[in-house]
Amino acid sequence: MNIVLLGSGNVATHLGRAFKMAGQTIVQVWSRDIDHARELADTLAAEAISEIDDVSASADLYIISVKDEAIKPLAAKLKVGDKLIVHTSGSTGLEVLDGVSSRIGVFYPLQTFSKSKAVDFRQIPIAIEANSPEDSAVIRSIADRLSEKVLEINSDKRKTLHVAAVFACNFTNHLFAISQELLKANNLDFDLLRPLIAETANKIQQNDPEDVQTGPAVREDIETINAHVEMLRGNPELMEIYTKLSQSIVNLHKRSEG
Amino acid sequence: MNIVLLGSGNVATHLGRAFKMAGQTIVQVWSRDIDHARELADTLAAEAISEIDDVSASADLYIISVKDEAIKPLAAKLKVGDKLIVHTSGSTGLEVLDGVSSRIGVFYPLQTFSKSKAVDFRQIPIAIEANSPEDSAVIRSIADRLSEKVLEINSDKRKTLHVAAVFACNFTNHLFAISQELLKANNLDFDLLRPLIAETANKIQQNDPEDVQTGPAVREDIETINAHVEMLRGNPELMEIYTKLSQSIVNLHKRSEG
Repeated sequence: MNIVLLGSGNVATHLGRAFKMAGQTIVQVWSRDIDHARELADTLAAEAISEIDDVSASADLYIISVKDEAIKPLAAKLKVGDKLIVHTSGSTGLEVLDGVSSRIGVFYPLQTFSKSKAVDFRQIPIAIEANSPEDSAVIRSIADRLSEKVLEINSDKRKTLHVAAVFACNFTNHLFAISQELLKANNLDFDLLRPLIAETANKIQQNDPEDVQTGPAVREDIETINAHVEMLRGNPELMEIYTKLSQSIVNLHKRSEG
Repeated sequence: MNIVLLGSGNVATHLGRAFKMAGQTIVQVWSRDIDHARELADTLAAEAISEIDDVSASADLYIISVKDEAIKPLAAKLKVGDKLIVHTSGSTGLEVLDGVSSRIGVFYPLQTFSKSKAVDFRQIPIAIEANSPEDSAVIRSIADRLSEKVLEINSDKRKTLHVAAVFACNFTNHLFAISQELLKANNLDFDLLRPLIAETANKIQQNDPEDVQTGPAVREDIETINAHVEMLRGNPELMEIYTKLSQSIVNLHKRSEG
């Protein structure tokens, strides 16, 4: 299958690599910035282009992997007839591609990608969608080559999956950043927390998070909570986050007990 | 070295196992509940007791590993002369043991423990403290047998470490619980997020969290943020947490750029 990859960011980079490893051919990599296009295209033995008019009309699949807000304007300029066009966004509906082609779909890999860090694509869930059963099958067959965990869900469910991922990944990472700031202010090394963080993620690979919740909030240890709030008094933002999350832990705990 | 372990919870259980594996002798396990004492004592070949008056006065080290608020009242009842007594709490100062013995200290392993899950104690940081250089050395020599990462810090620094751990571990786990709730409400399986969570923790083993932050907030993708807030409108608690954490990500990003 001949694929044109539109985009050169983290998702495009990892998808390109995974497709190539799965034996697909990336014929072109498009990016607004030709240097970015070249950087990725070179590793994929693909042609680098930065003009949307240079996109080949003879590929089998067009993957739009750009920032959410850039999908629609980019797709509107794509003139490839009724070829299969997909985007890779969790938070964008299928309908953003309406009118671009009669064959549209979504190919959303649920993972946090950094260019420099390899990931095992076999374990990454891929949420797919298409506007016809035939193209669902086409997209599924491509996704199955990359991952063991392909699921077909509609745009609403995909958006829920995406917002859940924001809590589980983006916000989690920010809590790590907050903890690092707190340590830095006291000349303590972030290395001290790395084993704890690894174990926190490790624990819920086999357990439900609710069942392994620890800390002062779930114990309703008001004295410790108050002492922590007092320690954070100089930083109203952190104090507020501390209070909200502690309250939310208490609330969830009460709901499950009730 | 002969040790008396006061407590039978998660920390006491893991400490007991680690001490035993390191060749120390646990002579007694005390718990208010004799069944709990027995359960742990049996695995450590120790005597189980539930009366504080039955604590042997001839051990070398007394480890108080109970809920924070129970440390002081328990310690007050301990009549073992001027033996070395330590507690294992991150958020409790050394001075909680003032007057209990002339030799007091802290032995705080920084990890999240579940009874059923083994952990590699060698990688767990242990923060120690004592009221004399001599006992610092004693505690350090014991800690060194358990872990490669022993650090001596005062109570204030330990409390900071503990509040940072609440952000990095307890709050993080709660975000996992929130994401599971969101998925459940849409009949989506939490398994979908497990690889993402593993990778999120994995990434920061080699990186600083700020450098690998992803998601709509750090991109200042207002459209996606607004769409997510809209999706969470039915749940004011989650909407507020979403908004606060997104704002905090934006703020941190601006501080580092400025």
